[in-house]
Amino acid sequence: MRISKLVGVRSKDNPADAVIKSHSLLMRAGYIKSVGSGIWTLATPAKRAVQKIERIIREEMDRIGGQEVSFPVVMPRELWEESGRFTSIGEEMARFTDRNNRGLVLGMTHEEASVHFARDSVTSYQQLPFMVYQLQTKFRDEARPRGGLIRVREFTMKDAYSFHLTENDLDIYYEKAFKAYENIFRRIGMKNFVAVQSDSGMMGGSMSHEFMLLADCGEDTLVLCDKCGYRANMEVAESVITTTPCPVSNPKEEVFTADKKEISEVSAFLKVPQEKTIKAVFFNIKGESGSVLCFVRGDLEVNESKLKKVIKKDIAPQSLSDSKELVAGNIGPIGLKLKNTVIVYDSSLKGANNMVVGANKQEYHIINISEARDLKISEFHDIAKVKDGACCVKCGGELRLSGGIEIGNIFKLGTKYTKSMDMTVLNANGESVNPIMGCYGIGVGRALASVVEETADAKGLNFPMAIAPWQVYLCPLRIDDKTVSKKAEKLYADMEKAGIEVLFDDRDASPGYKFSDCDLMGIPIRVVISPRSLQNDEVEIQIRGNDNSKQNLKYKDCIKAVKEIICKY
Amino acid sequence: MRISKLVGVRSKDNPADAVIKSHSLLMRAGYIKSVGSGIWTLATPAKRAVQKIERIIREEMDRIGGQEVSFPVVMPRELWEESGRFTSIGEEMARFTDRNNRGLVLGMTHEEASVHFARDSVTSYQQLPFMVYQLQTKFRDEARPRGGLIRVREFTMKDAYSFHLTENDLDIYYEKAFKAYENIFRRIGMKNFVAVQSDSGMMGGSMSHEFMLLADCGEDTLVLCDKCGYRANMEVAESVITTTPCPVSNPKEEVFTADKKEISEVSAFLKVPQEKTIKAVFFNIKGESGSVLCFVRGDLEVNESKLKKVIKKDIAPQSLSDSKELVAGNIGPIGLKLKNTVIVYDSSLKGANNMVVGANKQEYHIINISEARDLKISEFHDIAKVKDGACCVKCGGELRLSGGIEIGNIFKLGTKYTKSMDMTVLNANGESVNPIMGCYGIGVGRALASVVEETADAKGLNFPMAIAPWQVYLCPLRIDDKTVSKKAEKLYADMEKAGIEVLFDDRDASPGYKFSDCDLMGIPIRVVISPRSLQNDEVEIQIRGNDNSKQNLKYKDCIKAVKEIICKY
Repeated sequence: MRISKLVGVRSKDNPADAVIKSHSLLMRAGYIKSVGSGIWTLATPAKRAVQKIERIIREEMDRIGGQEVSFPVVMPRELWEESGRFTSIGEEMARFTDRNNRGLVLGMTHEEASVHFARDSVTSYQQLPFMVYQLQTKFRDEARPRGGLIRVREFTMKDAYSFHLTENDLDIYYEKAFKAYENIFRRIGMKNFVAVQSDSGMMGGSMSHEFMLLADCGEDTLVLCDKCGYRANMEVAESVITTTPCPVSNPKEEVFTADKKEISEVSAFLKVPQEKTIKAVFFNIKGESGSVLCFVRGDLEVNESKLKKVIKKDIAPQSLSDSKELVAGNIGPIGLKLKNTVIVYDSSLKGANNMVVGANKQEYHIINISEARDLKISEFHDIAKVKDGACCVKCGGELRLSGGIEIGNIFKLGTKYTKSMDMTVLNANGESVNPIMGCYGIGVGRALASVVEETADAKGLNFPMAIAPWQVYLCPLRIDDKTVSKKAEKLYADMEKAGIEVLFDDRDASPGYKFSDCDLMGIPIRVVISPRSLQNDEVEIQIRGNDNSKQNLKYKDCIKAVKEIICKY
Repeated sequence: MRISKLVGVRSKDNPADAVIKSHSLLMRAGYIKSVGSGIWTLATPAKRAVQKIERIIREEMDRIGGQEVSFPVVMPRELWEESGRFTSIGEEMARFTDRNNRGLVLGMTHEEASVHFARDSVTSYQQLPFMVYQLQTKFRDEARPRGGLIRVREFTMKDAYSFHLTENDLDIYYEKAFKAYENIFRRIGMKNFVAVQSDSGMMGGSMSHEFMLLADCGEDTLVLCDKCGYRANMEVAESVITTTPCPVSNPKEEVFTADKKEISEVSAFLKVPQEKTIKAVFFNIKGESGSVLCFVRGDLEVNESKLKKVIKKDIAPQSLSDSKELVAGNIGPIGLKLKNTVIVYDSSLKGANNMVVGANKQEYHIINISEARDLKISEFHDIAKVKDGACCVKCGGELRLSGGIEIGNIFKLGTKYTKSMDMTVLNANGESVNPIMGCYGIGVGRALASVVEETADAKGLNFPMAIAPWQVYLCPLRIDDKTVSKKAEKLYADMEKAGIEVLFDDRDASPGYKFSDCDLMGIPIRVVISPRSLQNDEVEIQIRGNDNSKQNLKYKDCIKAVKEIICKY
């Protein structure tokens, strides 16, 4: 490819709205262009990188027996009514009607399509297990698209669906898929990734893992134990609740706390640690009139995902400013009179002694509350977020938190879809049973952006050979010099003939201009031809990001050397 | 791939609604499954064939300098408002709104997206010409999806867009694209295809060609001259109007024609050839209150596409049963009093003599009408359909009609999109000019179905090697025989290792059952291993559709022989 014809603007300037590296660099290097909120055009360099990622994904999916298929992007709403997800999924799903007023949806994922595809043709347990997968466009109407290719509305996804006779067979396949995912991420050049237990969300099912790239910019928070390897998404992570023993229960007492309302203010005012206070957090139940009031130890936060699982309803944080029943900043568990409100106590309060709580009136708190004596809570739930440095439930080690970008996920789905959509097979005893499903997703564009997050440096993109759009940046200097131009054109042609992927900088531009484009675009090998190098019949080769790798080679040995570098990667 | 795990029903029965070969066979062979009207899942065999077609398309597009990109499927309506097509395109375009009530569309084609992509980065004539292309999902809300993959609503399209400084440069590139298209269709195994001039329709622009597979089931009608090679879609085809000379104009006379209304009835009743009558055909103008009344020689039909071009409005045929002004079956050009109606005379009436026309009253016609004497028509237009056997405008040869399936199209677009969307470059004189565009489309699924239309036989699909999902059908007979099963398993593994694509029929089934699946699925090479063949340490090889090709070979020579057959193709 000649760079003079390559469509795409390269720029030194950070796009105004880009706050993360991959967003900014992929735009600056002319890889992507925004068409609308969360909607992108991939220019040729991005398309080439994405195709290499897709090839690696296909190889690993085929290796675990995957059958590549193609489900439709647009599906009749009836298919999603069968599974119940037409109504259970909210605004993220795009819906429209056709010219005959029939309902259609844009598929967010293809469990329904995979069951629809298989249910007529798979009728016997002997046809199990099998796995079908596709690489296909998805549209999800995200509330807040952001971060370039990290969180978009339209994207290419590899989604795979496996079908099994027994839980045990799914367990075995789940392990295979797990390993295939590790291979994929390693092969596309990621290093610092982990698999964590996660929340199954809208997918349903019993067990799931997210593959996460550890990255500060990631919008997920991960809880990691370096001692035993415990890893979980904050959404589901647990920790041991440690409490400083406090055997004596002092008599409770209402105290004046002035205008102090935040836990930090109250704790400073009363000169007690935050661990000795009880915090109240209020939520609305979405689509209903009811509310949820949570009590949690003052130094902890409520984990909304865990809370949702406890109350089995969707929720949203609620401001108390308009409440007539509650005194914001002075809410406590004693003497509360609330209608239509579920109260949930966090496990951190179990056996707590001498705690500070709100007095449910302006400017007052109560001190020395004993859970056992004063609250008599009948049921506790784990609804608190794990804190950095908390104690691992598995080994007692110290937990640490890290940002994470979700790069893939695998789910045990159970029979949610085969049951609702009536897919059955006959087992060995001739009985009709619902196959057990697993599903496995990777967002291709996000994988590309994640590699960028991990590999890019101050000069720009810096692609691993496996997914670089081109392997070589062929960079003649002084192309107005006839010898340079002739030798460069010949080398370009010879490299293409030798199957080397080369981006040819055929522009009449300064060395600095060319080198900075080469660095920005992240091409792994730079080959420079200049009047000076040709004096010794040489070219200069350098590996991106490694100044010590610079070497001069005879012109005629260039292709061999380049091939060796490519192979060594 | 083991057939025991391959998802997809194979069946002997024709699907009830399938009237064409490819629809029926692709379903019967388990290649495709309907998800909704015009919406399909491609099973693994179809997906594999499609990927081979896509690879060939990519190679040919890259060879003419194409840059593969990926435009979004979902686009903001504003982009389509820029070009004016948001309103000019009708119900075929799917539209919906997102969670913020912003308008979105599903792209039917990507002229807008290509201009949006290029207009910021391409600013100088030196960056021209270039071509960008993609292989991507399109959705068009067809009024009548039918014929399996022939006319669908969702499909994968290769769409390409080229940008040029001059008309001449576009002409040169158009020729290159033309040849690339011929290469593509030839390489995927089509033989009987032609390129015809066509109507540019909603695309705008000055010139276009459709590539057509000649096939009786095709919904297009083609006009072909075998003598000079003139080829055109009926929509735009012309022919020489031949008239039997008739120098004497007899006096005109009103005659009783009873209840005869159809041209055939009137002509029989009056004992004159249909060529001596004048037919009236009535149309509504879509979206307006006006009408169009056409007069054409009685033996000819009105060509709606040509008529649309003449009146520059969209039209629909109108029944006359409710008309108060017109007497259906007795309409003639004399004494007509019509409001709000455009009258169009076909060129076939020029200089006509002694013609029969309706008298505009029940049960009467007028005979011996002379165009020059009685009608005094000031303007004629070519609005008639070419008839089979008509006279070629280029060479006077005899035209023939054929059905055709549109397998690709190329358009000269001009500056329609670069002007409306304000894309300019500076030319050599420093003047700002709009680049001139070409666009080039191929529907991938339809290409697959078209190859099937041309190659399938009574036994089933019959794929050319280049796009067959697998090259070899490995078919052990009596797999319960341990020697057979062992040798077959080894051959399967060895073939895969040798890079041969093989579908392994590992089922315990009868020879007839296996052979009929092999024939139905259209795999080019069948390799049979049986207890009998193994007595001589042999396998049997046969090429699909060629009974004479059957040969026995030593087991150890099988892979070499198969590779030779594959290479020879």
